[in-house]
Amino acid sequence: MLAPVTETTFTEQRLLDLNLASLSRYADFVAELEMASDLPTGLRRTPNLSVAYDADDAARLATFADFLARVGHPAERLTSGESRRHEPLLAPTIRSGLLVEGDWSCDNRLLWRALIKAAHRMGVRELPGFVHRVTSSNGVVTGVELADGSRIGAGGVVVANGAWAGQIDGLPDVPVRPVKGQIVRLDPGRLPGPSLTIRAYVRGAEIYLVPRESGREVVLGATVEELGFDHRVTAGAVYELLRDGRTVMPMSAEYALAETSVGWRPGTPDNAPILGGCDMEGLVLATGHYRNGVLLTPITADVITALIMSGELDSVAAPFTLDRFALTGSRAQ
Amino acid sequence: MLAPVTETTFTEQRLLDLNLASLSRYADFVAELEMASDLPTGLRRTPNLSVAYDADDAARLATFADFLARVGHPAERLTSGESRRHEPLLAPTIRSGLLVEGDWSCDNRLLWRALIKAAHRMGVRELPGFVHRVTSSNGVVTGVELADGSRIGAGGVVVANGAWAGQIDGLPDVPVRPVKGQIVRLDPGRLPGPSLTIRAYVRGAEIYLVPRESGREVVLGATVEELGFDHRVTAGAVYELLRDGRTVMPMSAEYALAETSVGWRPGTPDNAPILGGCDMEGLVLATGHYRNGVLLTPITADVITALIMSGELDSVAAPFTLDRFALTGSRAQ
Repeated sequence: MLAPVTETTFTEQRLLDLNLASLSRYADFVAELEMASDLPTGLRRTPNLSVAYDADDAARLATFADFLARVGHPAERLTSGESRRHEPLLAPTIRSGLLVEGDWSCDNRLLWRALIKAAHRMGVRELPGFVHRVTSSNGVVTGVELADGSRIGAGGVVVANGAWAGQIDGLPDVPVRPVKGQIVRLDPGRLPGPSLTIRAYVRGAEIYLVPRESGREVVLGATVEELGFDHRVTAGAVYELLRDGRTVMPMSAEYALAETSVGWRPGTPDNAPILGGCDMEGLVLATGHYRNGVLLTPITADVITALIMSGELDSVAAPFTLDRFALTGSRAQ
Repeated sequence: MLAPVTETTFTEQRLLDLNLASLSRYADFVAELEMASDLPTGLRRTPNLSVAYDADDAARLATFADFLARVGHPAERLTSGESRRHEPLLAPTIRSGLLVEGDWSCDNRLLWRALIKAAHRMGVRELPGFVHRVTSSNGVVTGVELADGSRIGAGGVVVANGAWAGQIDGLPDVPVRPVKGQIVRLDPGRLPGPSLTIRAYVRGAEIYLVPRESGREVVLGATVEELGFDHRVTAGAVYELLRDGRTVMPMSAEYALAETSVGWRPGTPDNAPILGGCDMEGLVLATGHYRNGVLLTPITADVITALIMSGELDSVAAPFTLDRFALTGSRAQ
């Protein structure tokens, strides 16, 4: 999902601004990327339909709609019947809906493949190996050390390794932790699939159903689990995803269960990314994107590139530097 | 499962006798096979614990207990608390149980691997190819024709291809149909797994939880679907298996979902196998084992071998010849 709005937790106005700034660049970003790679990214510009299942869910959705109106990004409130006119596969039992224009989706696997190919074409060199440590001398970056002990010298290093950012030695304290998410991929086969991205509050839980451009895949996610790098797909999580999925969209029970998988979001204490420089000269951080890594790809690429080239951090990224986590007085910086 | 008793549908007394005859040979069969192959088969001689979830399920279990007592194979009726003393991982909410001695289990994949290896060691030749047709001349078998058109001459042919028995041309009408079953395999990892094979009636559905000897796998099954050779693992079936599994054994929700799969049982009109000769001389049938293929392996091997060697069909198999399906008068044989 590219959901600047529906992925925003209430009150995170500055993060919403960052999300919207990234989405505003998405169409150009994807056009340029598809041209550079000759590969598709699966961008879908259909709106996002959030729905509520029970009375509590409906109250939560209404509060969210109020928040959006307050921050100048109103969405269309829908009845159950109106929601089903937008997406006929929804269960008649849903209570209410909220149609959010401008929350798109793209296929993260296609995007990744296109980025790798475009980068290779542009002359990016990929070196295999796990970066174990960032090396520095007198507070200035000198390069990285790989797990096998070999070193690569560099005057600048960008930390962009997602949930693993906290695993690199030699860095200042980067408060990034893995937040486990389990998802399943369904294949409608010859059955009709949803046409809109559905987000649903179901008995207090939150799920999404994202149809891919191909029509051959509906991504159903996701759990949010504080279990570190636990890699297990569990029976209970798959059960709950399938249960909530069929509650919202009964037809999904007829789809093939094509895949189950686990990922780790790079979580931070305030759920916002860490962008920009830090105390160590030459070290740039581009991590902690939590659930918005794909959405924030264009803005991250732009502000980090500009920072490296000009030394200036764009104002939209300024609230997201590492130093916001400094504890006044209680801890030496 | 090697469940001569709990896999028996009420009133199928003769099938129960066949099942019990096969189980009585199992220990020797497995000992011989493990020696011949130097491979394990995962045989577990723990009893089978059948449990009921709601009042209707309990009534059904009681009726089944009555049937077993009537046919001289009584099982021990247990309260909820007694059931949980036998298997502490069961949910406190189960109503009643039935402890069936002599319903064992073995690992079908290990058994298969051991059989293949033992057969190779004994000089069995395996020829690749899909048998498309059985050839005959004047009602006497002459061999088989493969899908690529090549032929293999033979004076005797044993049809032992399970759910695909109805797909071979040139045979008399063999009323075997595929009955789709979906199962999931769970991995307890470091968590405790069940020690007994659990069969459960849950809100009218029927599931089983079979722990493997290794402790690394619990097989949770199975759907029974009349969908021909449909090969899809569906979201709805996995959902229902996981739901019923966690209803009976809450801990199962914490296990890893290791695998989902589909199989096709060779179903017949009366759920019993088809064993022995038929109108076509030299053609022997060993198919239609429905849910009891693994259990009936020893007795099938013995009676079919004896039939080929001596021309006589053992009396225990006599009720299961193809001609029982002949419709008197209404259809030419």
